[in-house]
Amino acid sequence: MLTEIINIGDELLIGQVINSNAAYLGQELNALGVKVFKMSSIQDSKDEILRAIEEGFLRADLLIMTGGLGPTKDDVTKKSIAELFGVGIRRDENVLQHVQEIFKKYNRPMLDINMQQADVPENAQILFNHWGTAPGMWFEYKGKYLVSLPGVPYEMMNIFQNDLKTQLLKVIPQNKIYHRIILTVGMGESFLAKTIEDIEDALPEYIKLAYLPKSGQVRLRLSCYQSNDAIEQEIEQIALQLTERLESVIVAQEDVTLPEAILNQLKAKGLSLSIAESCTGGFLSHQLTSIPGSSKVFKGSLVPYDNAIKEQVLGVNTQTLAQRGAVSEATVSEMLKGCLNLFQSDIAIAISGIAGPDGGTEEKPVGTVFIGISNHKRELIKRFTFTNLRQVNIERSATQALAMLFQEFLR
Amino acid sequence: MLTEIINIGDELLIGQVINSNAAYLGQELNALGVKVFKMSSIQDSKDEILRAIEEGFLRADLLIMTGGLGPTKDDVTKKSIAELFGVGIRRDENVLQHVQEIFKKYNRPMLDINMQQADVPENAQILFNHWGTAPGMWFEYKGKYLVSLPGVPYEMMNIFQNDLKTQLLKVIPQNKIYHRIILTVGMGESFLAKTIEDIEDALPEYIKLAYLPKSGQVRLRLSCYQSNDAIEQEIEQIALQLTERLESVIVAQEDVTLPEAILNQLKAKGLSLSIAESCTGGFLSHQLTSIPGSSKVFKGSLVPYDNAIKEQVLGVNTQTLAQRGAVSEATVSEMLKGCLNLFQSDIAIAISGIAGPDGGTEEKPVGTVFIGISNHKRELIKRFTFTNLRQVNIERSATQALAMLFQEFLR
Repeated sequence: MLTEIINIGDELLIGQVINSNAAYLGQELNALGVKVFKMSSIQDSKDEILRAIEEGFLRADLLIMTGGLGPTKDDVTKKSIAELFGVGIRRDENVLQHVQEIFKKYNRPMLDINMQQADVPENAQILFNHWGTAPGMWFEYKGKYLVSLPGVPYEMMNIFQNDLKTQLLKVIPQNKIYHRIILTVGMGESFLAKTIEDIEDALPEYIKLAYLPKSGQVRLRLSCYQSNDAIEQEIEQIALQLTERLESVIVAQEDVTLPEAILNQLKAKGLSLSIAESCTGGFLSHQLTSIPGSSKVFKGSLVPYDNAIKEQVLGVNTQTLAQRGAVSEATVSEMLKGCLNLFQSDIAIAISGIAGPDGGTEEKPVGTVFIGISNHKRELIKRFTFTNLRQVNIERSATQALAMLFQEFLR
Repeated sequence: MLTEIINIGDELLIGQVINSNAAYLGQELNALGVKVFKMSSIQDSKDEILRAIEEGFLRADLLIMTGGLGPTKDDVTKKSIAELFGVGIRRDENVLQHVQEIFKKYNRPMLDINMQQADVPENAQILFNHWGTAPGMWFEYKGKYLVSLPGVPYEMMNIFQNDLKTQLLKVIPQNKIYHRIILTVGMGESFLAKTIEDIEDALPEYIKLAYLPKSGQVRLRLSCYQSNDAIEQEIEQIALQLTERLESVIVAQEDVTLPEAILNQLKAKGLSLSIAESCTGGFLSHQLTSIPGSSKVFKGSLVPYDNAIKEQVLGVNTQTLAQRGAVSEATVSEMLKGCLNLFQSDIAIAISGIAGPDGGTEEKPVGTVFIGISNHKRELIKRFTFTNLRQVNIERSATQALAMLFQEFLR
């Protein structure tokens, strides 16, 4: 099933918004065995939308559009689609009721343009949007399919995971897809590839191996898009080979993120965690607390951004700060002790570094980060040198802290 | 000058990589007054590349391609371009020397495929890549322009900032683009539209108004793509009208994020900030500390995820927690006092809520969040009901906290 993704919105074309919707849909469709051969970002105008649909249907069996469904005047998608199909507009009663409920719940006045959120082309099948006012829509057209989704990422994702996925599975040719994921951390993509070269070379043609890298983690995915029981067993055998070869860097045998893998391990071992994070400024705590149920193992964290807080709340010595600096092994060691003490947790992580762009010195350039972990009995502190970029340094530090925790304390 | 951006790479189509190159180019071209009307991500195959160039030149004056220039077999861009122009391939001596130097520097053996990095279509003008081995290329074709850049983001960006920008400025018609941004928070897109309907209706055709919503904020953007001094004045007049009409929800008159606007205000007023954030789990701190220079006003934060931490570190009363619950006005009030005390800051934010998916009750459903702000003299606490979705509740809470801080304490 050849598919094209069309993202509507001037904010994409002027680079104000990075197109995460396209990547999300690409990933999800790929997992369903649907081949995306093109993604386009286009203007929010009737001409461009109609042109994109017509050009898309020259080759694609399925077009998925996002965006252009808001209530304001620059949103013309629904009118364009109705014109394309030569149909009128109807007001959907279920959607209208849902929109009214949302406005009632938040006690907001409902305007005529809000009512129009319930207007759809007559031939639209509704993909219900429980999370917002603009419904998703499904159209069949000469044996092909057109889908229109709102551009707000979480609304789009939730509609995809609920109604749309079910609908797609009805029309996707019924091949059985089998994916097997192994999550690794701490080994680069090319070095991984070299390490498992012989296993990869020996793969039969119907089993694909993909390397999916993301901020210090590499997800290995074995896939077959026309699978059966025998092939599944074969894939599991190969996964076993990979696992033996890569044991030291494997974090999970399922499709979870690194923070999820960590929380699962902590929960399984009955251990609690706390964090004192300075240069990462709350990002590591955010990664963990984004996961439902994290409160079962995560006791809390402190962001001691000001050095005075490191002293007063964590008990770091004034002398240590003055002589060794806030970014030092000595300070991180005292932060660890203070963190364990403050939060009364089984394990503590402490991070102090120079995120940049300013604050670097010859001895400690921007990107220098000390990461420490302690479980009361054993303390491990490592020095890293990441990049010149603030965002990258924050993300890498968080990933490294979790990798250290997993590899040195949870395995 | 109508422009299309074409990003080549299967990793984009399977969603492995989010297309930040397109956003970067969109932003830079927009600033140069070049109008990007389409962005496409396509497969790394000769057919697709040739098709994209031919289709693109039907409307575009300038095509900028990224990717497909590596040494491995799946990179066919250069051959496709040479075929399109009916020219041969030449080996560029300057590029070859540069590639040889790179391999020498890293002490790596140089293979024949590495030499091929210096091969370019005969009619290519080189855009020198000081940061990698694949050169950028500039082509002129029937009064139009084709640019090919490597896909590695920092190589692409550096070539853009150095050779390509200079080259573009030589051929861009001297239209002037003018954007004027007003950042609002706390009023929905449709209500905003209603409030300024008459102003929008009265806009001349050459001035566009866009609504750019993002997690509780709406950016209003007035734009003209063929601007001059008179039109700029006209746009500023309209911005003034909008400002008077929307005064209570405007946070900034420039293209900044809400956290940046807050930090700027705090800095200007010489005020320091600290945060006690429970259900947002570090996200608000992360938003603020992502911004360089935030350490000048942000003293730190506590994530008291476990109720025991609320008691022991912030001094929230055991009785308050037992009788009113962690998610209550009373608890947030005590968190505020504890936060001001712990961090010795001028202003404190405290947040406690039920992010979900579990933990809701009839009285306090998932999405119930109490947000408080105190500046020692005055304390303001509001109750919100957001959604059923954990991520959304976290983001909305953070945005609302910043909005309250701005509107009630910093204006």
